[in-house]
Amino acid sequence: MNDERKKAVGVFDSGVGGLTVVHEIMKRLPGEAIVYFGDTARVPYGSKSPDTVRRFASENIEFLKTKDVKLLVVACNTASSIALPEIQEKEDLPVTGVLLPGARAAARATRNGRIAVIGTAATIRSRAYEKAIFDIDPDLETRSHPCPLFVSLAEEGWLDDEVTELVARRYLQPLADFKADTLVLGCTHYPLLKKVISKVAGESVVLVDSAAETAIEIEKILREKDLLNDMESRGRFECFVSDTPYLFKEVGERFLRMPILKVEHVGKEKDGKGWHTDDSENKEKP
Amino acid sequence: MNDERKKAVGVFDSGVGGLTVVHEIMKRLPGEAIVYFGDTARVPYGSKSPDTVRRFASENIEFLKTKDVKLLVVACNTASSIALPEIQEKEDLPVTGVLLPGARAAARATRNGRIAVIGTAATIRSRAYEKAIFDIDPDLETRSHPCPLFVSLAEEGWLDDEVTELVARRYLQPLADFKADTLVLGCTHYPLLKKVISKVAGESVVLVDSAAETAIEIEKILREKDLLNDMESRGRFECFVSDTPYLFKEVGERFLRMPILKVEHVGKEKDGKGWHTDDSENKEKP
Repeated sequence: MNDERKKAVGVFDSGVGGLTVVHEIMKRLPGEAIVYFGDTARVPYGSKSPDTVRRFASENIEFLKTKDVKLLVVACNTASSIALPEIQEKEDLPVTGVLLPGARAAARATRNGRIAVIGTAATIRSRAYEKAIFDIDPDLETRSHPCPLFVSLAEEGWLDDEVTELVARRYLQPLADFKADTLVLGCTHYPLLKKVISKVAGESVVLVDSAAETAIEIEKILREKDLLNDMESRGRFECFVSDTPYLFKEVGERFLRMPILKVEHVGKEKDGKGWHTDDSENKEKP
Repeated sequence: MNDERKKAVGVFDSGVGGLTVVHEIMKRLPGEAIVYFGDTARVPYGSKSPDTVRRFASENIEFLKTKDVKLLVVACNTASSIALPEIQEKEDLPVTGVLLPGARAAARATRNGRIAVIGTAATIRSRAYEKAIFDIDPDLETRSHPCPLFVSLAEEGWLDDEVTELVARRYLQPLADFKADTLVLGCTHYPLLKKVISKVAGESVVLVDSAAETAIEIEKILREKDLLNDMESRGRFECFVSDTPYLFKEVGERFLRMPILKVEHVGKEKDGKGWHTDDSENKEKP
Protein backbone atom coordinates (compact mmCIF):
# COMPACT_ATOMS: atom_id res chain seq x y z
CA MET A 1 0.00 0.00 0.00
CA ASN A 2 1.41 3.41 -0.89
CA ASP A 3 2.22 5.95 1.78
CA GLU A 4 -0.46 8.43 0.76
CA ARG A 5 -3.17 5.88 1.63
CA LYS A 6 -1.81 5.51 5.16
CA LYS A 7 -2.32 9.19 5.84
CA ALA A 8 -5.24 10.24 8.03
CA VAL A 9 -8.64 11.74 7.30
CA GLY A 10 -8.60 15.17 8.96
CA VAL A 11 -11.91 16.31 10.48
CA PHE A 12 -12.76 19.55 12.27
CA ASP A 13 -15.83 20.95 13.97
CA SER A 14 -16.53 23.92 16.24
CA GLY A 15 -16.76 21.47 19.16
CA VAL A 16 -18.05 17.98 19.84
CA GLY A 17 -20.79 17.70 17.18
CA GLY A 18 -18.41 16.54 14.42
CA LEU A 19 -17.81 13.33 16.35
CA THR A 20 -21.15 12.07 14.95
CA VAL A 21 -19.41 12.23 11.54
CA VAL A 22 -16.32 10.48 12.95
CA HIS A 23 -18.61 7.73 14.28
CA GLU A 24 -19.98 7.14 10.78
CA ILE A 25 -16.49 7.18 9.20
CA MET A 26 -15.30 4.61 11.75
CA LYS A 27 -18.30 2.40 11.00
CA ARG A 28 -17.97 2.60 7.22
CA LEU A 29 -14.18 2.85 6.82
CA PRO A 30 -12.70 1.14 9.90
CA GLY A 31 -9.13 1.02 8.48
CA GLU A 32 -8.86 4.81 8.09
CA ALA A 33 -6.75 6.82 10.50
CA ILE A 34 -8.69 9.88 11.72
CA VAL A 35 -7.40 13.15 13.18
CA TYR A 36 -10.12 15.26 14.80
CA PHE A 37 -9.92 18.88 15.89
CA GLY A 38 -12.71 20.42 18.00
CA ASP A 39 -12.47 24.21 18.48
CA THR A 40 -13.94 24.01 21.98
CA ALA A 41 -12.32 27.29 23.12
CA ARG A 42 -14.35 29.28 20.57
CA VAL A 43 -17.49 27.14 20.21
CA PRO A 44 -20.23 27.85 19.06
CA TYR A 45 -19.81 29.10 15.50
CA GLY A 46 -23.55 29.23 14.71
CA SER A 47 -24.16 32.59 16.37
CA LYS A 48 -21.12 34.26 14.81
CA SER A 49 -20.48 36.25 11.64
CA PRO A 50 -19.33 34.80 8.29
CA ASP A 51 -15.96 36.62 8.54
CA THR A 52 -15.23 35.12 11.94
CA VAL A 53 -16.38 31.62 10.91
CA ARG A 54 -14.14 31.83 7.82
CA ARG A 55 -11.14 32.89 9.91
CA PHE A 56 -11.69 30.10 12.46
CA ALA A 57 -12.19 27.47 9.70
CA SER A 58 -9.01 28.51 7.96
CA GLU A 59 -6.98 28.28 11.22
CA ASN A 60 -8.42 24.82 11.93
CA ILE A 61 -7.54 23.60 8.44
CA GLU A 62 -3.97 24.85 8.92
CA PHE A 63 -3.75 22.81 12.12
CA LEU A 64 -5.06 19.61 10.48
CA LYS A 65 -2.55 20.02 7.65
CA THR A 66 0.30 19.74 10.19
CA LYS A 67 -1.01 16.24 11.01
CA ASP A 68 -0.21 14.51 7.71
CA VAL A 69 -3.74 14.18 6.32
CA LYS A 70 -4.93 13.09 2.85
CA LEU A 71 -8.48 14.51 2.98
CA LEU A 72 -10.09 17.37 4.90
CA VAL A 73 -13.62 17.11 6.31
CA VAL A 74 -15.48 20.20 7.51
CA ALA A 75 -17.79 18.35 9.92
CA CYS A 76 -19.60 21.50 11.01
CA ASN A 77 -22.70 22.70 9.21
CA THR A 78 -22.04 26.36 9.95
CA ALA A 79 -18.46 26.23 8.60
CA SER A 80 -19.61 24.09 5.64
CA SER A 81 -22.33 26.63 4.81
CA ILE A 82 -20.04 29.63 4.99
CA ALA A 83 -16.42 28.67 4.39
CA LEU A 84 -16.36 25.51 2.24
CA PRO A 85 -16.14 26.98 -1.30
CA GLU A 86 -13.26 29.22 -0.24
CA ILE A 87 -11.41 26.31 1.44
CA GLN A 88 -11.91 24.05 -1.59
CA GLU A 89 -10.55 26.72 -3.88
CA LYS A 90 -7.49 27.34 -1.73
CA GLU A 91 -6.45 23.82 -0.75
CA ASP A 92 -4.65 21.24 -2.89
CA LEU A 93 -6.01 18.40 -0.76
CA PRO A 94 -9.55 17.12 -1.40
CA VAL A 95 -12.05 18.78 0.95
CA THR A 96 -15.64 17.81 1.76
CA GLY A 97 -18.27 19.30 4.04
CA VAL A 98 -21.46 17.93 5.57
CA LEU A 99 -23.81 20.19 3.61
CA LEU A 100 -23.83 18.74 0.12
CA PRO A 101 -24.15 15.12 1.34
CA GLY A 102 -27.11 16.23 3.49
CA ALA A 103 -28.72 18.10 0.62
CA ARG A 104 -28.33 15.07 -1.69
CA ALA A 105 -29.83 12.72 0.87
CA ALA A 106 -32.80 15.06 1.31
CA ALA A 107 -33.36 15.37 -2.43
CA ARG A 108 -33.39 11.58 -2.65
CA ALA A 109 -35.70 11.13 0.34
CA THR A 110 -38.50 13.57 -0.52
CA ARG A 111 -41.65 12.27 -2.22
CA ASN A 112 -43.67 15.48 -2.35
CA GLY A 113 -40.74 17.77 -3.32
CA ARG A 114 -40.89 19.80 -0.11
CA ILE A 115 -37.82 19.89 2.10
CA ALA A 116 -37.55 21.75 5.40
CA VAL A 117 -34.15 22.66 6.85
CA ILE A 118 -33.22 23.54 10.42
CA GLY A 119 -29.80 24.71 11.61
CA THR A 120 -27.91 27.42 13.48
CA ALA A 121 -28.65 31.10 12.84
CA ALA A 122 -25.50 31.42 10.69
CA THR A 123 -26.30 28.31 8.61
CA ILE A 124 -29.87 29.41 7.94
CA ARG A 125 -28.83 33.02 7.17
CA SER A 126 -26.32 31.73 4.59
CA ARG A 127 -29.13 29.98 2.62
CA ALA A 128 -26.48 27.41 1.64
CA TYR A 129 -28.85 24.43 1.98
CA GLU A 130 -31.48 26.14 -0.21
CA LYS A 131 -28.85 26.82 -2.87
CA ALA A 132 -27.44 23.28 -2.74
CA ILE A 133 -30.91 21.70 -2.99
CA PHE A 134 -31.87 24.05 -5.83
CA ASP A 135 -28.68 23.07 -7.71
CA ILE A 136 -29.55 19.39 -7.33
CA ASP A 137 -33.13 19.88 -8.57
CA PRO A 138 -34.69 23.31 -9.20
CA ASP A 139 -38.18 21.83 -8.80
CA LEU A 140 -37.64 21.06 -5.13
CA GLU A 141 -39.13 23.57 -2.69
CA THR A 142 -37.36 24.45 0.56
CA ARG A 143 -38.18 26.32 3.77
CA SER A 144 -35.76 26.86 6.61
CA HIS A 145 -35.76 28.02 10.23
CA PRO A 146 -32.96 28.62 12.77
CA CYS A 147 -33.10 26.69 16.07
CA PRO A 148 -30.37 28.29 18.22
CA LEU A 149 -31.44 26.69 21.52
CA PHE A 150 -31.14 23.11 20.20
CA VAL A 151 -27.34 23.12 20.62
CA SER A 152 -27.55 24.12 24.31
CA LEU A 153 -30.34 21.58 24.91
CA ALA A 154 -28.27 18.78 23.31
CA GLU A 155 -25.19 19.76 25.34
CA GLU A 156 -27.28 19.95 28.53
CA GLY A 157 -28.33 16.36 27.77
CA TRP A 158 -32.07 17.18 27.79
CA LEU A 159 -32.61 14.87 24.84
CA ASP A 160 -36.04 13.33 25.42
CA ASP A 161 -37.48 16.09 27.54
CA GLU A 162 -40.60 18.23 27.87
CA VAL A 163 -38.56 21.46 27.64
CA THR A 164 -36.95 20.30 24.39
CA GLU A 165 -40.37 19.30 23.05
CA LEU A 166 -41.83 22.72 23.87
CA VAL A 167 -38.87 24.44 22.17
CA ALA A 168 -39.20 22.15 19.14
CA ARG A 169 -42.91 23.00 18.83
CA ARG A 170 -42.03 26.70 18.84
CA TYR A 171 -39.25 26.35 16.24
CA LEU A 172 -41.06 23.94 13.91
CA GLN A 173 -44.38 25.84 13.95
CA PRO A 174 -43.38 28.22 11.10
CA LEU A 175 -42.55 25.15 8.99
CA ALA A 176 -45.79 23.27 9.70
CA ASP A 177 -47.92 24.88 6.97
CA PHE A 178 -45.26 24.07 4.40
CA LYS A 179 -46.07 20.34 4.72
CA ALA A 180 -42.56 19.09 4.01
CA ASP A 181 -42.14 15.31 4.03
CA THR A 182 -38.38 15.65 4.66
CA LEU A 183 -36.55 17.60 7.35
CA VAL A 184 -32.79 18.21 7.17
CA LEU A 185 -31.09 18.26 10.59
CA GLY A 186 -28.60 20.92 9.47
CA CYS A 187 -26.42 20.90 12.58
CA THR A 188 -24.36 18.01 13.94
CA HIS A 189 -25.93 18.45 17.39
CA TYR A 190 -29.49 17.90 16.24
CA PRO A 191 -29.39 14.11 15.69
CA LEU A 192 -29.22 13.80 19.49
CA LEU A 193 -32.69 15.38 19.63
CA LYS A 194 -34.09 13.14 16.87
CA LYS A 195 -36.74 11.50 19.04
CA VAL A 196 -38.34 14.79 20.10
CA ILE A 197 -37.96 16.42 16.66
CA SER A 198 -39.61 13.42 15.00
CA LYS A 199 -42.48 13.46 17.51
CA VAL A 200 -43.12 17.15 16.85
CA ALA A 201 -42.58 17.09 13.07
CA GLY A 202 -44.76 14.00 12.70
CA GLU A 203 -43.59 10.44 12.23
CA SER A 204 -44.19 10.49 8.46
CA VAL A 205 -41.53 13.17 8.03
CA VAL A 206 -38.10 11.71 7.12
CA LEU A 207 -35.28 13.21 9.21
CA VAL A 208 -32.04 13.62 7.25
CA ASP A 209 -28.85 13.47 9.29
CA SER A 210 -25.87 14.22 7.08
CA ALA A 211 -23.27 12.29 9.12
CA ALA A 212 -23.86 8.88 7.51
CA GLU A 213 -24.16 10.48 4.07
CA THR A 214 -20.87 12.33 4.60
CA ALA A 215 -19.09 9.04 5.34
CA ILE A 216 -20.40 7.69 1.98
CA GLU A 217 -19.07 10.82 0.26
CA ILE A 218 -15.67 10.39 1.95
CA GLU A 219 -15.47 6.79 0.74
CA LYS A 220 -16.34 7.91 -2.79
CA ILE A 221 -13.63 10.61 -2.85
CA LEU A 222 -10.96 8.31 -1.38
CA ARG A 223 -11.84 5.56 -3.88
CA GLU A 224 -11.72 7.94 -6.85
CA LYS A 225 -8.30 9.23 -5.80
CA ASP A 226 -7.01 5.76 -4.92
CA LEU A 227 -6.51 6.86 -1.33
CA LEU A 228 -8.63 4.26 0.51
CA ASN A 229 -6.86 2.59 3.40
CA ASP A 230 -8.07 -1.02 3.27
CA MET A 231 -6.06 -2.20 6.26
CA GLU A 232 -7.81 -4.95 8.19
CA SER A 233 -6.72 -3.44 11.50
CA ARG A 234 -8.57 -0.47 12.98
CA GLY A 235 -7.03 2.90 12.06
CA ARG A 236 -5.72 5.21 14.79
CA PHE A 237 -7.91 8.02 16.16
CA GLU A 238 -6.26 11.23 17.34
CA CYS A 239 -8.36 13.88 19.03
CA PHE A 240 -7.35 17.51 19.61
CA VAL A 241 -9.28 20.37 21.22
CA SER A 242 -8.55 24.07 21.74
CA ASP A 243 -10.04 24.19 25.27
CA THR A 244 -8.73 21.83 27.95
CA PRO A 245 -9.35 18.13 27.27
CA TYR A 246 -10.98 17.13 30.55
CA LEU A 247 -14.23 18.94 29.80
CA PHE A 248 -14.44 17.31 26.36
CA LYS A 249 -14.15 13.60 27.04
CA GLU A 250 -17.52 12.91 28.68
CA VAL A 251 -19.67 14.90 26.24
CA GLY A 252 -17.47 13.72 23.34
CA GLU A 253 -18.16 10.07 24.12
CA ARG A 254 -21.92 10.74 23.97
CA PHE A 255 -21.45 12.00 20.38
CA LEU A 256 -18.85 9.42 19.28
CA ARG A 257 -20.79 6.59 20.95
CA MET A 258 -17.55 4.93 22.05
CA PRO A 259 -14.75 5.66 24.53
CA ILE A 260 -12.21 8.37 23.69
CA LEU A 261 -8.86 7.19 25.03
CA LYS A 262 -6.88 10.41 24.74
CA VAL A 263 -7.70 14.05 24.04
CA GLU A 264 -4.87 16.52 23.49
CA HIS A 265 -4.93 20.28 23.96
CA VAL A 266 -3.74 22.69 21.30
CA GLY A 267 -3.07 26.34 22.12
CA LYS A 268 -2.32 29.42 20.11
CA GLU A 269 1.14 29.68 18.66
CA LYS A 270 3.23 32.63 19.78
CA ASP A 271 3.40 33.92 16.23
CA GLY A 272 -0.39 33.93 16.01
CA LYS A 273 -0.38 31.88 12.83
CA GLY A 274 -2.39 28.96 14.12
CA TRP A 275 -2.77 26.15 16.61
CA HIS A 276 0.00 24.09 18.11
CA THR A 277 0.12 21.20 20.56
CA ASP A 278 1.18 22.18 24.05
CA ASP A 279 2.18 19.07 25.96
CA SER A 280 2.43 20.85 29.28
CA GLU A 281 -1.33 21.36 29.20
CA ASN A 282 -2.16 17.77 28.34
CA LYS A 283 -1.97 16.33 31.81
CA GLU A 284 -5.17 15.06 33.38
CA LYS A 285 -7.13 17.55 35.43
CA PRO A 286 -9.66 16.84 38.17
CA MET B 1 -8.76 68.53 36.49
CA ASN B 2 -5.68 66.34 36.15
CA ASP B 3 -5.15 64.20 33.09
CA GLU B 4 -5.50 60.88 34.91
CA ARG B 5 -9.12 61.69 35.78
CA LYS B 6 -9.98 62.21 32.12
CA LYS B 7 -8.94 58.66 31.26
CA ALA B 8 -11.62 56.08 30.61
CA VAL B 9 -13.07 53.25 32.67
CA GLY B 10 -12.20 50.07 30.74
CA VAL B 11 -14.82 47.32 30.86
CA PHE B 12 -14.75 43.87 29.28
CA ASP B 13 -17.16 40.94 29.07
CA SER B 14 -17.35 37.74 27.03
CA GLY B 15 -20.08 39.37 24.94
CA VAL B 16 -23.04 41.70 25.44
CA GLY B 17 -23.90 40.99 29.08
CA GLY B 18 -21.41 43.48 30.50
CA LEU B 19 -23.40 46.30 28.95
CA THR B 20 -25.79 45.98 31.94
CA VAL B 21 -22.81 47.11 34.05
CA VAL B 22 -22.03 49.92 31.59
CA HIS B 23 -25.68 51.05 31.90
CA GLU B 24 -25.29 51.36 35.67
CA ILE B 25 -21.94 53.19 35.36
CA MET B 26 -23.52 55.67 32.92
CA LYS B 27 -26.42 56.26 35.32
CA ARG B 28 -24.28 56.72 38.41
CA LEU B 29 -21.17 58.38 36.92
CA PRO B 30 -22.35 60.17 33.77
CA GLY B 31 -19.12 62.16 33.32
CA GLU B 32 -16.92 59.06 33.02
CA ALA B 33 -15.56 58.02 29.65
CA ILE B 34 -16.10 54.27 29.11
CA VAL B 35 -14.30 51.87 26.78
CA TYR B 36 -16.07 48.52 26.38
CA PHE B 37 -14.71 45.33 24.87
CA GLY B 38 -17.05 42.37 24.16
CA ASP B 39 -15.30 39.15 23.12
CA THR B 40 -18.15 38.16 20.80
CA ALA B 41 -15.94 35.94 18.60
CA ARG B 42 -15.26 33.58 21.52
CA VAL B 43 -18.43 33.98 23.63
CA PRO B 44 -19.55 32.20 25.83
CA TYR B 45 -16.94 31.78 28.57
CA GLY B 46 -19.25 29.98 31.01
CA SER B 47 -18.90 26.54 29.41
CA LYS B 48 -15.13 26.75 29.11
CA SER B 49 -12.18 25.74 31.29
CA PRO B 50 -10.42 27.99 33.85
CA ASP B 51 -7.19 27.99 31.78
CA THR B 52 -9.00 29.20 28.68
CA VAL B 53 -11.01 31.83 30.59
CA ARG B 54 -7.79 33.12 32.17
CA ARG B 55 -6.07 33.36 28.79
CA PHE B 56 -9.02 35.19 27.21
CA ALA B 57 -9.34 37.58 30.18
CA SER B 58 -5.66 38.43 30.03
CA GLU B 59 -5.83 39.18 26.27
CA ASN B 60 -8.89 41.38 26.80
CA ILE B 61 -7.15 43.33 29.57
CA GLU B 62 -4.14 43.90 27.29
CA PHE B 63 -6.49 45.37 24.67
CA LEU B 64 -8.20 47.71 27.16
CA LYS B 65 -4.80 48.94 28.36
CA THR B 66 -4.06 50.21 24.84
CA LYS B 67 -7.09 52.52 25.22
CA ASP B 68 -5.74 54.83 27.92
CA VAL B 69 -7.83 53.58 30.85
CA LYS B 70 -7.56 54.43 34.57
CA LEU B 71 -9.56 51.49 35.97
CA LEU B 72 -10.30 47.98 34.69
CA VAL B 73 -13.71 46.35 35.19
CA VAL B 74 -14.18 42.61 34.63
CA ALA B 75 -17.92 42.80 33.87
CA CYS B 76 -18.28 39.05 33.37
CA ASN B 77 -19.12 36.76 36.27
CA THR B 78 -17.24 33.80 34.80
CA ALA B 79 -14.03 35.80 34.29
CA SER B 80 -14.47 37.51 37.69
CA SER B 81 -14.86 34.10 39.39
CA ILE B 82 -11.83 32.57 37.73
CA ALA B 83 -9.33 35.21 36.66
CA LEU B 84 -9.78 38.26 38.91
CA PRO B 85 -7.23 37.53 41.69
CA GLU B 86 -4.53 36.86 39.09
CA ILE B 87 -5.36 40.05 37.14
CA GLN B 88 -5.38 42.15 40.32
CA GLU B 89 -2.00 40.79 41.32
CA LYS B 90 -0.46 41.44 37.90
CA GLU B 91 -1.86 44.87 37.03
CA ASP B 92 -0.73 48.23 38.35
CA LEU B 93 -4.12 49.78 37.53
CA PRO B 94 -7.01 49.28 39.94
CA VAL B 95 -9.20 46.34 38.86
CA THR B 96 -12.69 45.37 40.00
CA GLY B 97 -15.01 42.51 39.08
CA VAL B 98 -18.74 41.96 39.47
CA LEU B 99 -18.48 39.12 41.97
CA LEU B 100 -17.50 40.84 45.21
CA PRO B 101 -20.05 43.66 44.78
CA GLY B 102 -22.72 40.99 44.18
CA ALA B 103 -21.64 38.97 47.20
CA ARG B 104 -21.69 42.09 49.41
CA ALA B 105 -25.15 43.08 48.22
CA ALA B 106 -26.42 39.57 48.95
CA ALA B 107 -24.90 39.53 52.43
CA ARG B 108 -26.63 42.84 53.15
CA ALA B 109 -29.97 41.72 51.71
CA THR B 110 -30.47 38.38 53.47
CA ARG B 111 -32.58 38.23 56.61
CA ASN B 112 -32.49 34.47 57.28
CA GLY B 113 -28.78 34.03 56.42
CA ARG B 114 -29.45 31.76 53.42
CA ILE B 115 -28.20 32.88 50.02
CA ALA B 116 -28.69 30.95 46.78
CA VAL B 117 -26.45 31.61 43.78
CA ILE B 118 -27.06 30.82 40.12
CA GLY B 119 -24.54 31.29 37.30
CA THR B 120 -22.75 29.60 34.41
CA ALA B 121 -21.22 26.13 34.82
CA ALA B 122 -17.73 27.65 35.13
CA THR B 123 -18.80 30.24 37.74
CA ILE B 124 -20.59 27.66 39.88
CA ARG B 125 -17.73 25.12 39.60
CA SER B 126 -15.27 27.79 40.80
CA ARG B 127 -17.23 28.23 44.07
CA ALA B 128 -16.02 31.84 44.00
CA TYR B 129 -19.37 33.25 45.24
CA GLU B 130 -19.43 30.78 48.16
CA LYS B 131 -15.89 31.80 49.14
CA ALA B 132 -16.63 35.53 48.82
CA ILE B 133 -19.82 35.28 50.90
CA PHE B 134 -18.03 33.15 53.52
CA ASP B 135 -15.26 35.77 53.74
CA ILE B 136 -17.84 38.51 54.35
CA ASP B 137 -19.65 36.53 57.06
CA PRO B 138 -18.84 32.88 57.88
CA ASP B 139 -22.32 32.43 59.41
CA LEU B 140 -24.05 32.89 56.07
CA GLU B 141 -25.11 29.69 54.33
CA THR B 142 -24.94 29.34 50.54
CA ARG B 143 -26.19 26.88 47.90
CA SER B 144 -25.51 27.22 44.19
CA HIS B 145 -26.68 25.76 40.90
CA PRO B 146 -25.55 26.23 37.28
CA CYS B 147 -28.15 27.42 34.74
CA PRO B 148 -26.42 27.06 31.34
CA LEU B 149 -29.55 27.48 29.21
CA PHE B 150 -30.40 30.91 30.67
CA VAL B 151 -27.79 32.66 28.49
CA SER B 152 -29.23 31.23 25.26
CA LEU B 153 -32.79 32.01 26.41
CA ALA B 154 -31.84 35.64 27.18
CA GLU B 155 -30.07 36.01 23.81
CA GLU B 156 -33.05 34.41 22.01
CA GLY B 157 -35.18 37.13 23.65
CA TRP B 158 -37.55 34.62 25.33
CA LEU B 159 -37.64 36.76 28.45
CA ASP B 160 -41.17 36.38 29.80
CA ASP B 161 -41.92 33.02 28.28
CA GLU B 162 -43.36 29.62 29.20
CA VAL B 163 -40.20 27.82 28.00
CA THR B 164 -38.03 30.03 30.20
CA GLU B 165 -40.38 29.44 33.13
CA LEU B 166 -40.21 25.66 32.66
CA VAL B 167 -36.40 25.81 32.48
CA ALA B 168 -36.27 28.04 35.57
CA ARG B 169 -38.45 25.56 37.51
CA ARG B 170 -36.04 22.76 36.59
CA TYR B 171 -32.92 24.74 37.58
CA LEU B 172 -34.28 26.27 40.78
CA GLN B 173 -35.85 23.03 42.06
CA PRO B 174 -32.61 21.80 43.76
CA LEU B 175 -32.46 25.15 45.59
CA ALA B 176 -36.09 25.12 46.77
CA ASP B 177 -35.59 23.06 49.96
CA PHE B 178 -32.79 25.38 51.03
CA LYS B 179 -35.32 28.19 51.63
CA ALA B 180 -32.98 31.05 50.72
CA ASP B 181 -34.49 34.52 51.01
CA THR B 182 -31.86 35.96 48.63
CA LEU B 183 -30.87 34.79 45.16
CA VAL B 184 -27.72 36.09 43.44
CA LEU B 185 -28.08 36.41 39.65
CA GLY B 186 -24.45 35.45 39.09
CA CYS B 187 -24.33 36.10 35.34
CA THR B 188 -24.84 39.41 33.56
CA HIS B 189 -27.44 37.82 31.26
CA TYR B 190 -29.78 36.74 34.03
CA PRO B 191 -31.25 40.16 34.96
CA LEU B 192 -33.09 40.01 31.61
CA LEU B 193 -34.97 36.96 32.94
CA LYS B 194 -35.72 38.61 36.31
CA LYS B 195 -39.51 38.47 35.91
CA VAL B 196 -39.61 34.70 35.31
CA ILE B 197 -36.92 33.93 37.89
CA SER B 198 -38.78 35.96 40.53
CA LYS B 199 -42.07 34.22 39.72
CA VAL B 200 -40.47 30.79 40.10
CA ALA B 201 -38.28 31.60 43.13
CA GLY B 202 -41.17 33.31 44.92
CA GLU B 203 -41.80 36.98 45.25
CA SER B 204 -40.44 37.15 48.79
CA VAL B 205 -36.97 36.17 47.52
CA VAL B 206 -34.72 39.18 46.90
CA LEU B 207 -32.92 38.97 43.53
CA VAL B 208 -29.41 40.44 43.63
CA ASP B 209 -28.09 41.81 40.35
CA SER B 210 -24.47 42.87 40.75
CA ALA B 211 -24.47 45.54 37.99
CA ALA B 212 -25.77 48.41 40.13
CA GLU B 213 -23.57 47.34 43.05
CA THR B 214 -20.52 47.24 40.76
CA ALA B 215 -21.13 50.85 39.72
CA ILE B 216 -21.15 51.83 43.42
CA GLU B 217 -17.83 49.97 43.87
CA ILE B 218 -16.35 51.76 40.85
CA GLU B 219 -17.36 55.15 42.28
CA LYS B 220 -15.76 54.19 45.62
CA ILE B 221 -12.44 53.16 44.02
CA LEU B 222 -12.27 56.25 41.78
CA ARG B 223 -13.05 58.53 44.74
CA GLU B 224 -10.41 56.91 46.95
CA LYS B 225 -7.78 57.28 44.23
CA ASP B 226 -8.88 60.80 43.32
CA LEU B 227 -9.69 59.63 39.81
CA LEU B 228 -13.39 60.64 39.61
CA ASN B 229 -14.26 62.54 36.45
CA ASP B 230 -16.78 65.13 37.62
CA MET B 231 -17.29 66.76 34.23
CA GLU B 232 -20.82 68.05 33.73
CA SER B 233 -20.90 66.82 30.14
CA ARG B 234 -21.53 63.15 29.35
CA GLY B 235 -18.37 61.06 28.93
CA ARG B 236 -17.63 59.35 25.65
CA PHE B 237 -18.55 55.69 25.11
CA GLU B 238 -16.35 53.53 22.87
CA CYS B 239 -17.45 50.01 22.06
CA PHE B 240 -15.25 47.26 20.58
CA VAL B 241 -16.08 43.64 19.73
CA SER B 242 -14.03 40.71 18.42
CA ASP B 243 -16.76 39.43 16.05
CA THR B 244 -18.19 41.75 13.41
CA PRO B 245 -20.07 44.76 14.79
CA TYR B 246 -23.32 44.44 12.84
CA LEU B 247 -24.51 41.40 14.82
CA PHE B 248 -23.79 43.17 18.13
CA LYS B 249 -25.68 46.44 17.88
CA GLU B 250 -29.28 45.21 18.18
CA VAL B 251 -28.74 42.77 21.06
CA GLY B 252 -26.31 45.21 22.67
CA GLU B 253 -28.91 47.96 22.80
CA ARG B 254 -31.30 45.61 24.65
CA PHE B 255 -28.64 45.19 27.37
CA LEU B 256 -27.42 48.82 27.44
CA ARG B 257 -31.01 50.13 27.30
CA MET B 258 -29.92 52.97 25.01
CA PRO B 259 -28.70 53.37 21.43
CA ILE B 260 -25.14 52.35 20.58
CA LEU B 261 -23.86 54.80 17.98
CA LYS B 262 -20.75 52.98 16.84
CA VAL B 263 -19.28 49.52 17.37
CA GLU B 264 -15.74 48.80 16.16
CA HIS B 265 -14.22 45.47 15.28
CA VAL B 266 -10.92 44.27 16.70
CA GLY B 267 -9.06 41.32 15.20
CA LYS B 268 -6.08 39.24 16.21
CA GLU B 269 -2.70 40.87 15.79
CA LYS B 270 -0.30 39.17 13.44
CA ASP B 271 2.14 38.56 16.27
CA GLY B 272 -0.56 36.78 18.27
CA LYS B 273 -0.02 38.98 21.30
CA GLY B 274 -3.52 40.37 21.50
CA TRP B 275 -6.32 42.33 19.90
CA HIS B 276 -5.96 45.26 17.55
CA THR B 277 -8.40 47.52 15.74
CA ASP B 278 -8.81 46.71 12.06
CA ASP B 279 -10.48 49.64 10.35
CA SER B 280 -10.99 47.77 7.07
CA GLU B 281 -13.49 45.54 8.87
CA ASN B 282 -15.41 48.38 10.47
CA LYS B 283 -17.59 49.27 7.54
CA GLU B 284 -21.32 48.65 7.86
CA LYS B 285 -22.56 45.27 6.68
CA PRO B 286 -26.05 44.34 5.57
